[in-house]
Formats: sequence, C-alpha cells, structure tokens
Amino acid sequence: MRILLVGAGGVGTAITRIAARRDFFERMVVADYDLTRAEAAVAAVADAGGARFAAARVDASDEEAVTRLMTDERCDVLLNATDPRFVMPLFRAALAAGAHYLDMAMSLSRPHPERPYELTGVMLGDEQFALDDRWREAGRLALVGMGVEPGLSDVFARYAADELFDTIEEIGVRDGANLTVDGYDFAPSFSIWTTIEECLNPPVVHEADRGWFTTAPFSEPEVFDFPAGIGPVECVNVEHEEVLLIPRRVKAGRVTFKYGLGEEFINALRVLHQIGLDRTDPVTVTAKDGTRVEVSPRDVVAACLPDPAALGDRMHGKTCAGTWVRGTRDGQPREVYLYHVVDNAWSMREYGCQAVVWQTAVNPVVALELVANGTWSGAGVLGPEAFTPRPFLDLLTAYDSPWGIREQRSA
Amino acid sequence: MRILLVGAGGVGTAITRIAARRDFFERMVVADYDLTRAEAAVAAVADAGGARFAAARVDASDEEAVTRLMTDERCDVLLNATDPRFVMPLFRAALAAGAHYLDMAMSLSRPHPERPYELTGVMLGDEQFALDDRWREAGRLALVGMGVEPGLSDVFARYAADELFDTIEEIGVRDGANLTVDGYDFAPSFSIWTTIEECLNPPVVHEADRGWFTTAPFSEPEVFDFPAGIGPVECVNVEHEEVLLIPRRVKAGRVTFKYGLGEEFINALRVLHQIGLDRTDPVTVTAKDGTRVEVSPRDVVAACLPDPAALGDRMHGKTCAGTWVRGTRDGQPREVYLYHVVDNAWSMREYGCQAVVWQTAVNPVVALELVANGTWSGAGVLGPEAFTPRPFLDLLTAYDSPWGIREQRSA
Repeated sequence: MRILLVGAGGVGTAITRIAARRDFFERMVVADYDLTRAEAAVAAVADAGGARFAAARVDASDEEAVTRLMTDERCDVLLNATDPRFVMPLFRAALAAGAHYLDMAMSLSRPHPERPYELTGVMLGDEQFALDDRWREAGRLALVGMGVEPGLSDVFARYAADELFDTIEEIGVRDGANLTVDGYDFAPSFSIWTTIEECLNPPVVHEADRGWFTTAPFSEPEVFDFPAGIGPVECVNVEHEEVLLIPRRVKAGRVTFKYGLGEEFINALRVLHQIGLDRTDPVTVTAKDGTRVEVSPRDVVAACLPDPAALGDRMHGKTCAGTWVRGTRDGQPREVYLYHVVDNAWSMREYGCQAVVWQTAVNPVVALELVANGTWSGAGVLGPEAFTPRPFLDLLTAYDSPWGIREQRSA
Repeated sequence: MRILLVGAGGVGTAITRIAARRDFFERMVVADYDLTRAEAAVAAVADAGGARFAAARVDASDEEAVTRLMTDERCDVLLNATDPRFVMPLFRAALAAGAHYLDMAMSLSRPHPERPYELTGVMLGDEQFALDDRWREAGRLALVGMGVEPGLSDVFARYAADELFDTIEEIGVRDGANLTVDGYDFAPSFSIWTTIEECLNPPVVHEADRGWFTTAPFSEPEVFDFPAGIGPVECVNVEHEEVLLIPRRVKAGRVTFKYGLGEEFINALRVLHQIGLDRTDPVTVTAKDGTRVEVSPRDVVAACLPDPAALGDRMHGKTCAGTWVRGTRDGQPREVYLYHVVDNAWSMREYGCQAVVWQTAVNPVVALELVANGTWSGAGVLGPEAFTPRPFLDLLTAYDSPWGIREQRSA
C-alpha cells in the first residue's frame, strides 16, 4: 500500500509516528501546504523505518495538484488529516486518481434557512454521499469519518448491534475528559475555532420514527459518569457525524452525540455567542498602528488562547471516547458503555503526542491496515459501521491501546 | 456663571439639555474633540434658551489649549464630562485658568505592584488630592466625583450622618437596574470597555481600624433588593470613588461600593477575563484583507456590542443609585437605603436621554447651581460629602427628580 497523507498538523504528525511502527504499507508521502511541517513530521520518524516516508508540498484546496501528486507517487489511498474545509477537494482528487480515500471528519453542514433548530438543512457528509454511485462505479472505497469520533465510536455501535444486543432502544456517543493544562485557567485541549463551529451549529438527533432533526445548541444536558477515574462530566448535544452514519447500518430507536464539554466550557461558549465573539464576519477596530482594520472576532478569541497542539507537555489527565447503548438481550434489559481511554502521560511518553490528537490518529492507521490486508474491503462511500467490527477492535488492542466495556444500569 | 463644558458625548449632551431649563448661568461653551458633536448638542437646545450655548473644538489632553479657551471665553468653571483619562489635564487646565472645576470620575488608580488584591497602590483621586494645597492657595474649588456615583451617593452618606444616625457601622453604596434592550440578548447600558476596567481592577474597601485595602475582583457577592420594582440583583465589590471619598468626612466602621451587575453580567466578565479578551495589549490576527494586524482584544469585544448611548429608544426599565447605611439612632439600631431612581421611559420622553446617562448628568448641574448661588462654596479639592447635603437634595427634587428613603431591617 502506498499512502498520500495530506495534512502534517497535530493529527497528521501523530499518524506518521503510529504508522512508522507498522509494516502494512510500502510508502507514505506526507504533504502539507507548509513543506517545513511535512519535513518535520518525516524527520521525526527517521529512526523508525523512516525510509518509507517522504515530504511534499501541496495545497489541499487544489484538486488537480493533489490528483497529480497521487499519480506521480503511485499512491493507492489518500488519507485526509486536514480540517473539514478541505474534505470535498481531497475526496474528489482521490476519486479522480482512481484511489481509495479515508478521512476523520465529513463534508460540512449548512443549517436549515428558516427553522435551523428543528429541521436539518444540508447535513454532515451529504455532499460526500451524493457521489456514492461514482465511487461504486470506480470500484474504490471512500471510508468516511474514520477517526475516533466519528470512527471508533461507530465501530462500537456496530459491535453492540452484532454481538451484544437483540434490540437497541438508544445509542449515545459520549465523549469526556479530565485534562488540565498547567499555567492556564482556561486552555481548551482542541481548537477553539473548530469547537465553536461544532458546538454552535444546530445539534442533530436521529429517531427511528422521525428521522433526522435538529435542536437548539447545548440541548438535553446530562451528567455522564466516565470510566478510568475521569468521573462525572456535563455533556450536551453537539452536531457530529455518528448521528448521520450509525442509523445507516444499525437499527436503534434513537441516536445522539453528546460532548462532555463541562459546565465551565459550555458557559464560556454561551458567553462568546451572546456577545457575538463567535462570529466570523468581521468587525472594524482601530489597530495598534492607528489604522482601521476588519477582523473576525472568532480569530481574535483563538489568538488569545494557546495552541492546543503545543500544550502536550503541560497537560495532565485522560480523554475518553465511547458509545453508550441501551436495549435488550435474551429478553432482558441491557445497558453498556464501550470506550477507549488515552492517558496523556502515556501518549506523550510513547509517541510525543498529546492524548486527544493521538486518539484521533490511531484509528485511521488501524483501518488502513485492515484495508491493506484485505480484512476490510468495499466500494462506494461507507462509514466505519459498514464493516465487521471485531477485527478492528482486536487490532486496536494489538496497537497497545485496548478498549473497554462497562455493563451498567441507569438510575 | 460662565461654564466650559468639556465633552459632548452622552453625559455632556444630557447636561446641556438639563441646564437649558435653568437660569443660574449666563453662558455654557460646549467643547469636544469632535466639533460636530458639540454643535449637535448646542443645536438640540436651540429652542430652550439656546442663545446661552456655544460650541467649540478642543483636545481635552491639551492643557494649554483648554486654559486658553477658558480665558478667551471668560469661563469661571470647567465641567469635565470626558472619560477618566482626561481628568488630570483638565483639572490642571482649570487651575491654571484660575477657575473652579467639577468632574464625575476621579484620576485613575494603579494596582499595588506586588500584592494587588490586598494592598492599595495609587488610589482613585490620589493625583488630584496631591494638588489640594494649590487649589486652596488659589482660593478655587475643585469639586471632584460629583455625578450620581460618586456624587449623589456621597451626598446621601453625609445626609445620613448629619440627620439620620448617631453612629454608623457601615455605609454601602449599592447600584442596580432592571434595564433591558429590545433586540439584544446582551447589551450593556454603559460602555463595556469602561466596565471591564472598573470591574477587573482590585475593588477597594475602607475600614475604620484598618484603612483602605483591596480584594479580588467580584468579592463579597450579595443580593440587594432594589426599590421601585427593580427587585433583587446580585451585587459585588467594585473599585469606586465613594470608598475613597466618604471616609474623609463621615465616620463609619466600614465603607464599600457594590455594583448590581447581575449574575449574567458578572459571568460574562469572568469568561472574558479567563480567555484574556479583557486585555488591552494587542494580539496578532489576519485581517479580512489578508494582512497581519495587531488589535486589542478589549476593543474587539466593544466592537461586537452596540453603542449604549444609542440604545435609549430600545431600552426599558429603571436604574437605581443609592446609599445603604446601618448604625444607631437614639440607642436603637437603624438601617436605611437612600436612593434615586430614573425610569428610562421618563428620561427619554422628557429629555431624549437614556436613564443611566441622564442620572449621571443631572447631579453636576444641581451642584453648579448651588455653587452659582453661593449655597455651596469652598476652596481646595473637595468631594460632595464635604458640603451640607439638604440643599442639594431639595434642589434635585425641584428638578423633578425626587429621591427616596427606605427604612429597613437586615434579615
């Protein structure tokens, strides 16, 4: 297998470090708009099978340039580790190159123009699924949403349906952490820009008898008790790919995604929104040099906060991704939480990557290995829940990153 | 009396409208850095004795230019309605011109360099009181802090000491409102820039046996029940001039100022501070035109919010300023709240000014009338609590803006 990895940011860099320890691929070309970032990622794996890696410069928004790079390097799969704005050009570039494609976040949504907090508009992934026929005709696989959430969370849902339940009433992806950052009162462990986008878009919910619908931001708050010492964290509905993917393959009365933002973070997002500091359309202010300039308030918020990818050394705690399922087995009620925890101290020591970034990165590498060895195969646009889950979960454990299962009962 | 009014913003404009109905002065020159603002203020009172008013352009930071304007116009008092950055140049300009001086906010503080939340550094008004001897030698009066708070609140404290109490344990200035603005979830009725400055500086407290000391921001929260239908509002300690002024003349065990910011507003200020959006030192962001620019986060916050002076038409509710006093009378415990309420509907209808601005503006006009007719006189730097309070309170009532007194008992 010859892989083109596009994006050498936090997640892309972690992917190279994880992949360097595996032998399922022949070559990985690491391409970024900023060549020095790609070169740094490649240099860091020089001691560990680094000869298979090469750095390149590419503009992810330039479809033709990406297709050309794929062809020149004879890559048979494109692994997209950029931000969601670049999903569609990279998705089309891989199709044009006759390659497989894999990403960790799907094409962006647009709210319903009149009733944004009741009805869906353009949904996450809609633009990708619209090209399903063309991928099938080409006999190539577009494995979409294959990070940790979406990704591993979808694998958990399919595993629950296949092996743990006869009927499923509800599937709720639940994400929580107890990460803190030394020296900062308030330092998100992920991009504030993206988090604002994710959290202030109308959250989407699926119900079997109603289909997809949306709610107001931060709806249905609940306190979820996370394992591994993380404990209870306040979670709220957030727009996320799993809610669009899981119902395509798994029969469940209800599917939600709730993010364990915690009260403090939810409060901060609410205030930013109230004041209008989440806006991306510019306001006019006087700059330090006395000129009047137009700046995006959301960019200014991001500039006030530290870069989360650079905080790994000061970070403490664990992050947990997982899927909570409630239903029946053999006529009895059953409730489980399937989960995956990464301790920041471990991921820093083992890989030099902070926990949130590492947890996102390991899953697409596991998936590529399954595609490379033929365990997972298919044609068309498919989510992780479309594949047999057990081999994935076993291979994840073989990557020294075991998952867990908690049998539980609602209060 | 010939008055130079410097500053034709919200408060300056309200001063012209209130003064236009009174005959105690011969001339009022309205000066602003922006001549069109001064001209607009003068034009608005053309029908009501407008011949006494004239507009001029002046830079409030240019001491010599202000002194020259005072002399040219033969003004015998300077009324400062600018923001506190201009207190010292205007204060010195009036002294140089041999005139009296009156302001509504005092020279700025600087926190203690090592222990800002325990000890005072340079206190509000320190720079003005340092020139007390020179004002006394000149035989001229600098009446400082003569708005509503400080100002009327100080008059109330002196009135309580003179006429209502034998001993005073505590004096607490308490400010609260129930103002709302149509069409906005979050629209402060006063400058967010100034409010951040005021609320995030270390609050100052005075105790008879300890002197002045500071606390952390938002300390000693309490819910104070405001009259006139405003009801309970959460109040916290804020740095304010009364705490520096009242103990100079009135014996009290403790003096505080608490601002009824309300939970929502306090929460918003805390979040802004946590993220660093209260900062005035610049951050670098990419502007809309692609250039890298340095902007102050606090300026961006202000730019996201509407201009409070322009919101009067959309505003509803009342604002209350007042002084709560606890002590004894004739050997019995006594507790009163002396207060002044302005209904926005009334101030808009009567004066075309929003309530907060009008309430600030009426008090210096009342004080100038007392100086003009010789009821209040003195030389040196003096606060409102240095003068006999009863004539002030009677004249305020004669301006159609009565004050109130509530006898109460702590729970």
